[in-house]
Amino acid sequence: MIEICLWNPDKDGVIRRSDRIPDTIPGISRFQQVVLHQGRIERFFLDFLASKSDIRVERGVLPTRLDWDESLAEDPDAYPVTVTLRHLSEAEATPPQVATSANGGAVQDGLFRSNLAPDDTAELLRAADLNDKADTTEVVRARYVVGADGAHSWVRRQLGFALEGETTDYIWGVLDIVPITDFPDIRMRCAIHSASSGSVMVIPRENKLVRLYIQLTTTEKAAAAADGGGESSRVDRSKITPDLILRAAQKIMAPYHISYRKLDWWTAYQIGQRVGSRFSKNERIFLAGDAVHTHSPKAGQGMNVSMQDAYNLGWKIASVVKGLSSRSILSTYELERKQIANALIEFDHKFSRLFSGRPARDIMDEEGISMEEFKNAFEKGNLFASGIAVDYQASNIVAKAVDPANGNDRGNAKLPSVASDGSLASQIKVGMRMPSVKVLSQADARPWHLQELLKSNGTWRVLLFAGDVGRPEQKAKLARMSDQLAAPDSFLTRYTPQGARYDSVIEVLTVHAGRRVDYTIFDFPEVLRPYDELDGWDYGKIFVDDQSYHEGHGRLYDTFGIDPAKGCVVVLRPDQYVSYMGALDDYASVDRFFSGFMIDQSAVNGKA
Amino acid sequence: MIEICLWNPDKDGVIRRSDRIPDTIPGISRFQQVVLHQGRIERFFLDFLASKSDIRVERGVLPTRLDWDESLAEDPDAYPVTVTLRHLSEAEATPPQVATSANGGAVQDGLFRSNLAPDDTAELLRAADLNDKADTTEVVRARYVVGADGAHSWVRRQLGFALEGETTDYIWGVLDIVPITDFPDIRMRCAIHSASSGSVMVIPRENKLVRLYIQLTTTEKAAAAADGGGESSRVDRSKITPDLILRAAQKIMAPYHISYRKLDWWTAYQIGQRVGSRFSKNERIFLAGDAVHTHSPKAGQGMNVSMQDAYNLGWKIASVVKGLSSRSILSTYELERKQIANALIEFDHKFSRLFSGRPARDIMDEEGISMEEFKNAFEKGNLFASGIAVDYQASNIVAKAVDPANGNDRGNAKLPSVASDGSLASQIKVGMRMPSVKVLSQADARPWHLQELLKSNGTWRVLLFAGDVGRPEQKAKLARMSDQLAAPDSFLTRYTPQGARYDSVIEVLTVHAGRRVDYTIFDFPEVLRPYDELDGWDYGKIFVDDQSYHEGHGRLYDTFGIDPAKGCVVVLRPDQYVSYMGALDDYASVDRFFSGFMIDQSAVNGKA
Repeated sequence: MIEICLWNPDKDGVIRRSDRIPDTIPGISRFQQVVLHQGRIERFFLDFLASKSDIRVERGVLPTRLDWDESLAEDPDAYPVTVTLRHLSEAEATPPQVATSANGGAVQDGLFRSNLAPDDTAELLRAADLNDKADTTEVVRARYVVGADGAHSWVRRQLGFALEGETTDYIWGVLDIVPITDFPDIRMRCAIHSASSGSVMVIPRENKLVRLYIQLTTTEKAAAAADGGGESSRVDRSKITPDLILRAAQKIMAPYHISYRKLDWWTAYQIGQRVGSRFSKNERIFLAGDAVHTHSPKAGQGMNVSMQDAYNLGWKIASVVKGLSSRSILSTYELERKQIANALIEFDHKFSRLFSGRPARDIMDEEGISMEEFKNAFEKGNLFASGIAVDYQASNIVAKAVDPANGNDRGNAKLPSVASDGSLASQIKVGMRMPSVKVLSQADARPWHLQELLKSNGTWRVLLFAGDVGRPEQKAKLARMSDQLAAPDSFLTRYTPQGARYDSVIEVLTVHAGRRVDYTIFDFPEVLRPYDELDGWDYGKIFVDDQSYHEGHGRLYDTFGIDPAKGCVVVLRPDQYVSYMGALDDYASVDRFFSGFMIDQSAVNGKA
Repeated sequence: MIEICLWNPDKDGVIRRSDRIPDTIPGISRFQQVVLHQGRIERFFLDFLASKSDIRVERGVLPTRLDWDESLAEDPDAYPVTVTLRHLSEAEATPPQVATSANGGAVQDGLFRSNLAPDDTAELLRAADLNDKADTTEVVRARYVVGADGAHSWVRRQLGFALEGETTDYIWGVLDIVPITDFPDIRMRCAIHSASSGSVMVIPRENKLVRLYIQLTTTEKAAAAADGGGESSRVDRSKITPDLILRAAQKIMAPYHISYRKLDWWTAYQIGQRVGSRFSKNERIFLAGDAVHTHSPKAGQGMNVSMQDAYNLGWKIASVVKGLSSRSILSTYELERKQIANALIEFDHKFSRLFSGRPARDIMDEEGISMEEFKNAFEKGNLFASGIAVDYQASNIVAKAVDPANGNDRGNAKLPSVASDGSLASQIKVGMRMPSVKVLSQADARPWHLQELLKSNGTWRVLLFAGDVGRPEQKAKLARMSDQLAAPDSFLTRYTPQGARYDSVIEVLTVHAGRRVDYTIFDFPEVLRPYDELDGWDYGKIFVDDQSYHEGHGRLYDTFGIDPAKGCVVVLRPDQYVSYMGALDDYASVDRFFSGFMIDQSAVNGKA
């Protein structure tokens, strides 16, 4: 998806292209937006898990009981949670679909996952009760549980947490088709507002497929008055068919024609926005994804924000379970992600109102929505969707000043143990993602995007921006820092378990601003390029901000606002968010930063 | 591999870095040189074959007999070749290796594939004779046979063709190790000439492995004098061990130290250059790869040139076997590839002499080699290695003037049926690969490298560089060309079998020079974006030379030297070499070009 085309009614009420905007804001990332089916993304994760571990994802398993002992919550070695699981038969685990046929072939639909469907967990369990064969049960004792079980989250209900918000009257249908159409922008992402027939969003997909989100203005609610509210305020899903959705699209997109011979999938949903009241129970049982935030799908945020929840939480739990970090870092999950969920819901509320509303006929038409406002929301939405606007609050893993605006909602989150000096790199922001440009490996001149060096493997990183190492004072500062890093009681040594690789818990990377050809890695202290008995020296730790042969010049020092005559140290979390920034030779602050939450492994070994 | 470092003796005879040159010439390609193990490349091909077809590569099969009936050679439907195949047992098919151990572990070596080993095909066959179980035989009747069976090619011997050339006295060893060394450029590609101990080439590989090519100056030939030449002029391979090779490297690389704990693979070889006298028997039995050209491995050309042989030949045979092209195109294989093989051998002869020679001590040292000459050869070698310097001769599939310098060695190759007008695009050369810059898809604004659009699927391409379609005369020329392409007797129709997809034999792609936002695909004639009953219009045929949001501006018209007020037509072979260039509205010449070798499918259908 490269470009967004906005189509609006002209003065005669005929839709015209009124604007084009880039779908990814130029310059914000080396990646651009693409559309990937959720099934494919899940497949990437599953394949990766299978290739790297013996973890297998089980499907068709439902929890039936959750017990927990709050008195054990703060004991890091305890297993305070017990979950009883029920394995379903394949028939039970396959949700019944509404039978649909199009052009004589059966078509998959997504209604069973839509919020138009009532919660069918209880029904599935009842079905399982009647099936002796499938009725096998497993009891799992757990240190931590994550409920990523969707809008109807069973885990959330066991914890008694609410999902607060509202449902709107807006009903939308979704068609995945290979369209046959003379609408010229069908391979663009389009937002089409008709004068009075509703709106369509066009999302081009692979293999000539196009996803159309189509506003349904003719659908009546099912017997809403008859049984007085509750589930009854939902639409009658039996009345929604692909034909009905297509006819709505044809009306909105007229005078252009659209039909199809290939229908791949379809669904419908009712727009609503809800946020979870709590994201965890004592930092032992967590909720993530739709279990704590639901909204309309058009902003492209459902899977993105939910994966980011899990990405935020995953390394933290792993670090605690491995005994590397104290439990105190876990409270940052709710601190960081609830703020995002609130922002998401606020954005979606505004965006879906603008998308589902009727365009204003003129400036006096106060009920109609302003197309200028819609365009602005679209552009802002794209920045939000990119994820790079995220700015996490101060905590023991984000060393910055507490924002008074967020001061009242800190939960159990700790305060930072050190202060950063943000002036040392004006374009690196503590609490935000590390920016990236290309740097060259000193050993082989190969260009790398800085972020490529920051693998998501649970490792913390200390980036030494050494500056111009041709200046004696920079060389001296780097030498001082290196001496302390190499000392037997340095944080590198204290927090790395005996026998583990030197860069497995905290990795030190150096990026200098000298000329590449004036140096080799042997001009740098050995702690910056450690020696291994089997492999020799490490060639992958020292980088330089210089011209490459084929991929330009990253100009890191300029771009990040670092003075080559000063340099700085930046500490990055395992999820590539910036934790701390300080002077190049201020070893003590970095040591104090890690001391705020990491566990001394020599003490652990001593105990054993 | 990014950079080549040249190391030479200084005036005191100590090696120093004397030069750095980029390993890929900047600007010649969007790709850069990388090192991939042959096993991995074979794996990519095997995986691709398995995913796209039911073709399976059988190993451990040897030919025992080849019969052929020359009288059937020119009958396109005949099967003139009969090959008898013998299936070996796994034990037979696994060549015996010299047992090597390093640090207590067994190590694979490559001596059995080295030219130091005598041809062991006969031995393998004898072993198979003694093994009843494995002794199954298969007789294959073939229309075409390709002998890609290496320097000792059995097929070549059956045909009685010679491999002409010479063997040198230069012996080199190869070590794939994880080096432990203070040599600072071990992760660069290096050419190290010592004062008098020989030379080393360093090729950095994956996972800290490094391949070292090491000149062996101490190895004596085995009993060369004793039995007077022949196989006896080969070195005694039993005397070559990894330790001997390492010691040679240590001497060359002193005063730096090098050792290893991990040895992955090793071999040794004697440098020689040979070219096959003939590349085919009546264009029915072909030879490719080492069967027709052998040389030293250091130029990185063995697998590259051999794969290019097969790439040149593959689509031609396929096109003939499918009944799309006449057999006349097959004679271009020898015409085109023998020229390359000769150039390769000439280069390798010079390069290996320069690499194995002793550096000149000073300008008066006439026996020593000039380091300046060596550096120039290295740079020239890189251009050759890139493959883009290839310039194929005139034939019925390369419409250009015959080069008198090559006029005497045309074999059965036909002359072009039309003449190109090379002035229409000064930077597109008939006979050479199509250059590539980025263009935007008109339908979705997505940037594509032009070459990405030219899939190697056997399809010919007609590129219509329509120029600035805002000019009425350009629009008119495009309309004229389109009308003729859409006519019922056009070459598109004549050469595409009934029922085959409209773009399966010849695909028409348009690249115009207007502003993208001023057009949609519906502004272009339908033959340039054909309609399909199931899928609607084709969105992937019309492109524009314009600014992209994220990936710059290809400036195709400027870069290729095409006047937007003129445009042109370029015809590309299925292997992306340029066949023809002419005026945008000169339909007749394009039609005549294809008529020179393609088979009218309506006539074929009429016959049936």
